[in-house]
Amino acid sequence: MQTPLKIAVVGSGLVGSLLAIYLKRAGHTVHVFDRSEDIRKVRFSGRSINLAMSHRGWKTLDDLGLGDEIRQIAIPMEKRAIHLLGKPLTYQYYGKDGESIYSISRGVLNRKMIDLAEQEGVEFVFGTKVWDVDLPTATLHSGESERGEWQDHDYDIVFGADGAFSRIRHRMQRQSLFNYSQEFLNIGYKELNIPPNPDGTHKLNKNSLHIWPRQDFMLTALPNLDGSFTCTLFMPFEGENSFESLTDKESLEKFFAEHFPSTIEVIPELVEDFFKNPTSTLVTMKCYPWTYKDKVALIGDACHAIVPFYGHGMNAGFEDITILNQLIQEHGDDWSLIFKEYEKSRKPNTDAIAELSYRNFMEMSSKTADPKFLLQKKIEKHFSEKHPDKWIPLYSRVTFSYRPYSEALTIGDRQKAIMDDVMHMDNIEQIWDSPEIEAKILKMLSE
Amino acid sequence: MQTPLKIAVVGSGLVGSLLAIYLKRAGHTVHVFDRSEDIRKVRFSGRSINLAMSHRGWKTLDDLGLGDEIRQIAIPMEKRAIHLLGKPLTYQYYGKDGESIYSISRGVLNRKMIDLAEQEGVEFVFGTKVWDVDLPTATLHSGESERGEWQDHDYDIVFGADGAFSRIRHRMQRQSLFNYSQEFLNIGYKELNIPPNPDGTHKLNKNSLHIWPRQDFMLTALPNLDGSFTCTLFMPFEGENSFESLTDKESLEKFFAEHFPSTIEVIPELVEDFFKNPTSTLVTMKCYPWTYKDKVALIGDACHAIVPFYGHGMNAGFEDITILNQLIQEHGDDWSLIFKEYEKSRKPNTDAIAELSYRNFMEMSSKTADPKFLLQKKIEKHFSEKHPDKWIPLYSRVTFSYRPYSEALTIGDRQKAIMDDVMHMDNIEQIWDSPEIEAKILKMLSE
Repeated sequence: MQTPLKIAVVGSGLVGSLLAIYLKRAGHTVHVFDRSEDIRKVRFSGRSINLAMSHRGWKTLDDLGLGDEIRQIAIPMEKRAIHLLGKPLTYQYYGKDGESIYSISRGVLNRKMIDLAEQEGVEFVFGTKVWDVDLPTATLHSGESERGEWQDHDYDIVFGADGAFSRIRHRMQRQSLFNYSQEFLNIGYKELNIPPNPDGTHKLNKNSLHIWPRQDFMLTALPNLDGSFTCTLFMPFEGENSFESLTDKESLEKFFAEHFPSTIEVIPELVEDFFKNPTSTLVTMKCYPWTYKDKVALIGDACHAIVPFYGHGMNAGFEDITILNQLIQEHGDDWSLIFKEYEKSRKPNTDAIAELSYRNFMEMSSKTADPKFLLQKKIEKHFSEKHPDKWIPLYSRVTFSYRPYSEALTIGDRQKAIMDDVMHMDNIEQIWDSPEIEAKILKMLSE
Repeated sequence: MQTPLKIAVVGSGLVGSLLAIYLKRAGHTVHVFDRSEDIRKVRFSGRSINLAMSHRGWKTLDDLGLGDEIRQIAIPMEKRAIHLLGKPLTYQYYGKDGESIYSISRGVLNRKMIDLAEQEGVEFVFGTKVWDVDLPTATLHSGESERGEWQDHDYDIVFGADGAFSRIRHRMQRQSLFNYSQEFLNIGYKELNIPPNPDGTHKLNKNSLHIWPRQDFMLTALPNLDGSFTCTLFMPFEGENSFESLTDKESLEKFFAEHFPSTIEVIPELVEDFFKNPTSTLVTMKCYPWTYKDKVALIGDACHAIVPFYGHGMNAGFEDITILNQLIQEHGDDWSLIFKEYEKSRKPNTDAIAELSYRNFMEMSSKTADPKFLLQKKIEKHFSEKHPDKWIPLYSRVTFSYRPYSEALTIGDRQKAIMDDVMHMDNIEQIWDSPEIEAKILKMLSE
């Protein structure tokens, strides 16, 4: 146990709530502030992509003994279901031996996490807008409006878990020598819905992450407990096939009939949902440093917001907590050291998952539709099964392992160079599982 | 002439003042706001690097007929004077036929520009802190403090020329889809001074930019009209040879005796100046978009702050004005179009000069001390003189030309690849001006 302190967590999202439980268990008084009302009492907005919980996320929950409770509200997805235009459905397994990622509704999980945190004795302060923080004293300033009257809240430590547009970071950003970048994709997304069958079963294969890859745009669907799927349409804001071009019922229906004919039956509320739900943006945000002395630290999206194409936003945020907790165990009350080691250890890894996530849009939207790419995956899998000690595919390294993201990126780039060579060989389609290929890969690996 | 509008320029620096003159001549009412008092009435702070005006900067002044007046306060520097430890002074000419860059004191130039703008009828509003802008209405908000009472100022158009930490950009940054990055170097700088001789002459060669390259750090000196030089020490914040390590008179004097012995006589106030003057930071800032409809536009450092190692911060800012003015001539009252074309045209070029400036620290601090690099420059010069149509050195392309910076970067990278090949040839020291080398370069250029 550490010396008990009074700690504020700004943001009651997934990372904020889970961090609060860890801090409470470490013996601290913990208050969680959120500008929104208690999401357990309001309808969740239609602007969420379902979560894909994988090894790193589960570890952070399991270390507290909370994993099994969350598994109750999660659906394993062991494969991609790839819907090509005018071709039969194909499946691509994510890992081996049933290794799965888990679909969870963000709203359902967040409500659950707040319940759990409250049961542990964490106090939540909803509907309170934190606008600023005094870094040297860890004093929060809240108020109705940014320019109106403010109240002060004194703490020993403040955590900014307030997401990609963090106000805590906003203050840190105004220090000298603070590096910062925000980069928006020209691709937006919109939530759609596949309702359950009348008997409550799923209309599509339940244990799959469904993708309709169409090069510059794509549709995905992730299963929910109630038999529905949460769909997300990713598409450029402007151009030929874009949100801008879908201005009315007619253009929308024509677009879906042309590009996603197989979905027309299963998305009955397409027109209503499309024009009701917001078009959301996708941003990659990086910054450094993440901490201020022993007073203030950023965590989760507040210091490393990424695009969702690897399904690792929440997993990376939860892993921040795992690492922070390990450092707390190691260094006791030396919060300055804990914070320094925390940011130093996490930064290269969150930069790596940002890069991998950015690249993965191409993989999902284009490459999954490319027979050459699917063959490459098959070769990797074949080789990996024969030489599990020599080749762990990049996806598995990122998703079904606890090794650093930065290591996955480095080794993944090396594997890519090898596979590029292999895929350029003559008649690779015929010899893909031949001893020749195996020997070639082994040789390149040893170089 | 355009239809007369009421235009505010925020920031009375070099770019703000010169832009104001252009706008006034185009027929508008122009008010320039600055949070500081009139710099003509206060002592200028010791945190400035002398300016190096080159072709692009002169063009913006000459197009208004103001160049000759400014030439009166400028000193041509036709070469680098390279001070190596324990070796004779060497010179490296920047261009051909006396092509020079021009040393100007920032304070002297800024006072002059404000005088000139006032003579044209521009109104300056000093000591007025602009905190925010309402983008759709181009209304400025000023006040004593960020959280205190604010006054409104209505305009038709607002220009943010308020530097790297622009408040106008700060507002634009909070829009969705606004890309932004700020990246600090771990190198800081400090101003020092070489006073004139008793008779008012310069203690070092007057028509040179002096460099003491020492790998990870360097000292520079640029001449002033009064016989003095403004020196700048560039050095890491932390580490062995760093600002952090120079904590007192003893460590400072020991450091200078070891690394800059030749300067000890000419910098008599070293200790006093070093500990009195601030240690400043160096930032590269990029953002996009730069404009909001036909209402608000950023210009100069407010949208593209760069590090000073190419001497192009002011030149790039002045070139913004040249391009903006060309678009005003072309498109008349269509400010939406003018702003769109302006940002689209400038962005790739300011990104390019940012990259070139960042790279040039290495060139100045390390490569100018490397005989191989000086030989490479000699080969380039030799070839360029024989084939002026085939090879314009990168430095000349950036500094003594009006061609886009982005073109200079692209062609420069190609030239670098060629020179890397050439420099790796056996006994290049002996054959550097041989027909063999000439033929080799010609061949590579034609590939």
